[in-house]
Amino acid sequence: MYVLEGARLCGEAIEKYRNGELDIYAAFASEKALERYSQYIPTELFEDEKAVDFFTVSESVCDFMSGTKGSQGVFLIAKTDERILADADISAGKRCGKYIVLDNLQDPGNVGTILRTADAVGVDGVVMCNNCCELYNPKTIRSAMGSALRLNIYNAGELSEVCEVFAKAGVKTFAAVIDSDATSVAKCDFSGSCAVVIGNEGNGLLKEDADCCDEKITIKMHGNINSLNAAMAGGIILWEMFREDNGRDTKL
Amino acid sequence: MYVLEGARLCGEAIEKYRNGELDIYAAFASEKALERYSQYIPTELFEDEKAVDFFTVSESVCDFMSGTKGSQGVFLIAKTDERILADADISAGKRCGKYIVLDNLQDPGNVGTILRTADAVGVDGVVMCNNCCELYNPKTIRSAMGSALRLNIYNAGELSEVCEVFAKAGVKTFAAVIDSDATSVAKCDFSGSCAVVIGNEGNGLLKEDADCCDEKITIKMHGNINSLNAAMAGGIILWEMFREDNGRDTKL
Repeated sequence: MYVLEGARLCGEAIEKYRNGELDIYAAFASEKALERYSQYIPTELFEDEKAVDFFTVSESVCDFMSGTKGSQGVFLIAKTDERILADADISAGKRCGKYIVLDNLQDPGNVGTILRTADAVGVDGVVMCNNCCELYNPKTIRSAMGSALRLNIYNAGELSEVCEVFAKAGVKTFAAVIDSDATSVAKCDFSGSCAVVIGNEGNGLLKEDADCCDEKITIKMHGNINSLNAAMAGGIILWEMFREDNGRDTKL
Repeated sequence: MYVLEGARLCGEAIEKYRNGELDIYAAFASEKALERYSQYIPTELFEDEKAVDFFTVSESVCDFMSGTKGSQGVFLIAKTDERILADADISAGKRCGKYIVLDNLQDPGNVGTILRTADAVGVDGVVMCNNCCELYNPKTIRSAMGSALRLNIYNAGELSEVCEVFAKAGVKTFAAVIDSDATSVAKCDFSGSCAVVIGNEGNGLLKEDADCCDEKITIKMHGNINSLNAAMAGGIILWEMFREDNGRDTKL
């Protein structure tokens, strides 16, 4: 189970529940939230359906439950949907599948921000591997702004296993590294099916992990700087993957 | 005065101090930090120069002083350098000056991440206007990872005044907006001198502020998503500004 917080996010989750795409166990709202965010909180739904326990709670309980200051006072408890990456999930196909792989990222805010950006460009799937921080961490869910509900997200073990699945499906893998000899992401050919692997905040990708991938790519930088925030690096690469019309129906 | 925290950041600040580019009032380090990070903490400098008061402090004092968990135990107190934007600061010139303007951003982590990215692409200047959150907030300084020391950063009042300064200098201004009719940043002509304005996290740029700029630009998105994290939006636009060889010596 995990917690969803905030009126808009909970509203989106309730839509998924109505469509049979998400299991919700319980909902919590303050009196004030029920007035202010009535469009997102269908109390009649909770009355009709016994499956969801609904609780009106005080402001102070909301503050206690909340991970942020100034809680909106709307919470859901939903069922996690942990999908293990399987060969069947990945297809190169006609659509030229585009994937992002998060390898050992540790900051839930970074993971959430990458998910939000991945959703904005329209990736086909996200793989979290090598002990990446948990998708259902409240901070990840919050910074993903609903994208965690919309994206295809898969868990996996070692990066080498992930690369095998992609290789079998005909998806080219790119390792994002800090290395001036690697291909500049601005010059990289992202046409066709491909996946980009982003590494840990402090250490980047381990050499043996980068070596599992088909090609190494890098974001060229100016002057003395040699790294970007991991979410920013991921976002710029996602942007580049979808920037040109790489055989997709979306042109950004 | 403001606080700098962390061994590498303080090491960089001490270099600036040696070059006469930064005033430092005091330095603090734990015994453990003095051992572990000796290359960054020139204790002989503090003995020779009476201008900097140096204090060895306990681990618990470090934890108290620190804005993060797991403090490295190295701190400096430095003099702020608040520069007000003046006509003389901005020049279109041969170099094709590129600027970013942060209008009413409120999250210090976002501002720091944008500064780090701005430094990585090589902007000529950053303008913080319309009650943008403070540059010297410890969280901004921390997430900027030294970029706050390296960049040309100017303060300004209203965006309309900033746009006047840019117009006078022959620098084209772009307003980043969420509007499907605006020019896609992937198709925008960033050659020549230009400045991009990024707005507040929740509300974006106010219409009257966007109207002060020469052109409106937008990051086209896929599906139902209509916004990105402000730092991510700023970073993608910075990347696009420098992506092609727009008359600059740096090619990313």
